[in-house]
Amino acid sequence: MKVVRAEIIAIGDELLYGQIVDTNSHWISQELDLMGVKVVRKTTVGDDRKDVLAAFESAEKRADIVLITGGLGPTKDDLTKPLLAEFFGCDIIEFPEAVKAVSEYFIRRGREMTPLNILQGHLPACCTYIPNEVGTAPGMWFERNGTFWMSMPGVPHEMKKLIKDFVLPKLPEIFPLPVIHHKVIKTVGIGESWLADLISDWETALPSSIRLAYLPSLGHVKLRLTGFGSSKESLEKAIDEQIDTVMPLIEKYVYGFNSETLETAIAKLLKAEKKTIALAESCSGGYISHLITSVPGSSAYYQGGIIPYHNQFKNKILGVSNETLSKFGAVSEETVREMATGVRKLFNSDFGLASSGIAGPDGGSEEKPVGTVWIACAMNGRVETKKLQLTQDRMLNIQLTGVAVLNMLRICISQK
Amino acid sequence: MKVVRAEIIAIGDELLYGQIVDTNSHWISQELDLMGVKVVRKTTVGDDRKDVLAAFESAEKRADIVLITGGLGPTKDDLTKPLLAEFFGCDIIEFPEAVKAVSEYFIRRGREMTPLNILQGHLPACCTYIPNEVGTAPGMWFERNGTFWMSMPGVPHEMKKLIKDFVLPKLPEIFPLPVIHHKVIKTVGIGESWLADLISDWETALPSSIRLAYLPSLGHVKLRLTGFGSSKESLEKAIDEQIDTVMPLIEKYVYGFNSETLETAIAKLLKAEKKTIALAESCSGGYISHLITSVPGSSAYYQGGIIPYHNQFKNKILGVSNETLSKFGAVSEETVREMATGVRKLFNSDFGLASSGIAGPDGGSEEKPVGTVWIACAMNGRVETKKLQLTQDRMLNIQLTGVAVLNMLRICISQK
Repeated sequence: MKVVRAEIIAIGDELLYGQIVDTNSHWISQELDLMGVKVVRKTTVGDDRKDVLAAFESAEKRADIVLITGGLGPTKDDLTKPLLAEFFGCDIIEFPEAVKAVSEYFIRRGREMTPLNILQGHLPACCTYIPNEVGTAPGMWFERNGTFWMSMPGVPHEMKKLIKDFVLPKLPEIFPLPVIHHKVIKTVGIGESWLADLISDWETALPSSIRLAYLPSLGHVKLRLTGFGSSKESLEKAIDEQIDTVMPLIEKYVYGFNSETLETAIAKLLKAEKKTIALAESCSGGYISHLITSVPGSSAYYQGGIIPYHNQFKNKILGVSNETLSKFGAVSEETVREMATGVRKLFNSDFGLASSGIAGPDGGSEEKPVGTVWIACAMNGRVETKKLQLTQDRMLNIQLTGVAVLNMLRICISQK
Repeated sequence: MKVVRAEIIAIGDELLYGQIVDTNSHWISQELDLMGVKVVRKTTVGDDRKDVLAAFESAEKRADIVLITGGLGPTKDDLTKPLLAEFFGCDIIEFPEAVKAVSEYFIRRGREMTPLNILQGHLPACCTYIPNEVGTAPGMWFERNGTFWMSMPGVPHEMKKLIKDFVLPKLPEIFPLPVIHHKVIKTVGIGESWLADLISDWETALPSSIRLAYLPSLGHVKLRLTGFGSSKESLEKAIDEQIDTVMPLIEKYVYGFNSETLETAIAKLLKAEKKTIALAESCSGGYISHLITSVPGSSAYYQGGIIPYHNQFKNKILGVSNETLSKFGAVSEETVREMATGVRKLFNSDFGLASSGIAGPDGGSEEKPVGTVWIACAMNGRVETKKLQLTQDRMLNIQLTGVAVLNMLRICISQK
C-alpha cells in the first residue's frame, strides 16, 4: 500500500516572531499519524505573497494532501485566500451559502457584522466551501493534479473541528488507507529502560502487524500499540490479546489505558471503593491538591488539605509532636508519618497523604541534600512511607513528588 | 538597513509524527526577533535524505542565516551530519579537539564511552567546530555564498546554550544589525481593549523609532516597547522616558517589568514589607498556594494554607460559623470573609486570603451559576472582598481565580 504523504503549512507573521506557539501543527500531526497518513514536512511562513506562494508550489510537488492553517482573518494582512485563488488560477466570488452562514453566526451571538465580515463569505470559485460552525472564516477544499488541499483558520478550536468533522472522515474516501487501531497502556513508577527490559521477550514476539512505541513523560511511560490491517474488529481483538499477554508482567505499574490520567484513575478507584482522602503537603505546596481538584467531581472523595509550610503548624494543626520535629527534623520518615496520620484524623478521611522535603534551590545539607523528599500514606491500621532522592530543580522536584504521592495512593487503594 | 532573513530547519521523524512538540523553533524565533533578525520560514522535515537536502537547498536560496536543530545523535537514524557534508561537498574527518571534548564529557560524568560516541567528534572538514559544553553532539558552523549555517543538537538546553554563547554574539559581527532595546510592562486586571483605550493618546504620540506590541495572556496583558536606533544608551533612555509618561495612566495595573511574574512581584513586596500570608482555598483547590510556593525562597513569607473542600472543615478548622454557612451558603461574601479572617488568625499571618466558588462543570444554580467565585483578603483592621463571574470551564475558573486573588493581594500590600 502506497504511503500517503501530507504536508502542513502554517501561515502568519506572529508564528515566525515567536509571539505565539504553533500548537496546531503538532495536533494535526498526531491526528494524521493515528490515521496512517505520514506527515513529511511542516512549513511556517509569514504573511508574505512570495513566501506563501513558494510554499504552495513546493508542497504540490511532494504531497498527496496539504493542510493549511491561518491567514484567513477579515483584514488586509491575511493573504491566504487571495493567494489560494492566485495559485489555483480562479477568481474570488460570492458563495451565498457562506455569506448566509457568516451572518447567521453574528446573529446567534447578537453581534454587529461589518462589511469586512461579509467578505468572509467570498471564496475562490475553484474551491469547495466547507462550513465552519464555530467561527467566521470558512474552510476551503481544493483538488488539482492528484493533490488535495484544505485551508482552515488558525484558531485552534475552529481548525480542530474542521479536521475532525471533515478532513479525517474524508481521508479514507480519497486514499487507500490501512485500517489502524491504537491502544495506549499508561504506566507510572518505572523508567523506560527498565520497562523495556521487563517486556523485551513479549516485544520481540509481537507480530509485524502490531508496532510498539515508548512515549515517556515526567514520571510516566506510555506504551502505544498500533495495529495495521483490514478489519477493525480483528485488530482490536489482536491488540487486546497482546495486552492480556503483557499485563501480568507490568500490572503493578499500569494505572489505565488511552486518555486516562493518574488523577482520573485515582478518582475511579476512590469512587468505586467509596473512600475519601486528605493531604498534608509541605514541599509540594498545594500542587497535589491542585491536580486532584482539577478533576470534575473530586469533591466526592477529596476532603481537604493542609499546607503546613512551617514546623509550628505541623505541630499546631496536624499534631506532629515537637519532639519528633526536633529529633528527626521536618524532612524525615517520622515527621511525614505523623503528618499523614494527623491529616487523616483532622479530615476524618480513609487515606491521609503527606509530603515533606527540600525542594531547593536552598535549604539542602550534606545529610539531606536538595531533592530529598519523604512521602507517606496513612490508612486504617498502617502507614506506608517512602524516601525519594530527586533533582536540583525546584519545579521538577514538586512535580515528581506529585507523581510519587499519587502513585503511592493508587497502590494503597488497590491493596485494600 | 537591509533586513537579515533567517530560516529555521528542525530535523527528526519524532517531530513530524506528533510525538514531541518542537519548542526549539519558537524559542529561537523569539531570540532572533529580539536581535532584529527576521525569521522568514520554519521547516520541519523527517530523517530522510531527500527531504533534508531539499530543505537545505531551498533555504540557501532565500536566507542570510540558517539554524538547524536535531538529527545529531550517535545512531544511524541521525542524518544531519552526513547530509551537511554532502551538501557542502566535503568529507567527514576526525576533529581531535572535538573527540577530546566528547571523551572528557564522559569522564566528567563517570560514564562509559561507546565507539559511536567517539564518532561524534568526527565532523565535515568544511565546518568550524563549535564546542557543546553540556552534551556530546558538537555545534557546526558553515559559510557559503554569503549564507551562514549553524547546526545544533535538538536537546533544548544544549541548543539554547549554543545559541546564547555562540550565535547571538556572532550575529552583530556578520550582519549590519540595528541596535535594539526592549522593555516589557506587565499588567494585570485590565483587558487588552480597555488598556488600549487608556493609553491611545500616548500610543499615537510614540516616535517612529519605538514600537508597541500588546501581548495578552490569561488575565494579563504585556506591553512590549521596542526601540530601534544606533546607540543602546540613548534607546534605553528614550524608552524609559516613554514609560515614565505612560505609567501614571496605568500604574495601578502594573506589577512589574520584563521577566517579573505576579508571584515574584508579590514576593518582592512581601519581603520588602516583612509581611506574611496564609491562604484558605476552596474552589482554587491548592492552585494559588502552588503558584506562590513555586517561587524559590517563598517560605520567608508563605506561612501555610488550608483547603477546606467541605463546609464542615470551613467551620472546624477555619472557624467559619455554621450560621453563616447555612444562611448565606459556602459561595458568599460572608463565608469568604470569615475564611480569610480565620486563616489569617490560624497561621498568625499579616494577610489572610480566601477563595470560594463554583468551578464547575456541576454545582451551579440559577442564583449562583458555574463560574461564580467570591475572593477575600483579610488584613489588620479590614477585609477586602470581591465577586467574580467567570467561565463555564473548570480549569479556566481555577486559573482566573488564581490571578484575581494574587492581584488582590498585590493591591492590598501596596495600599498598606
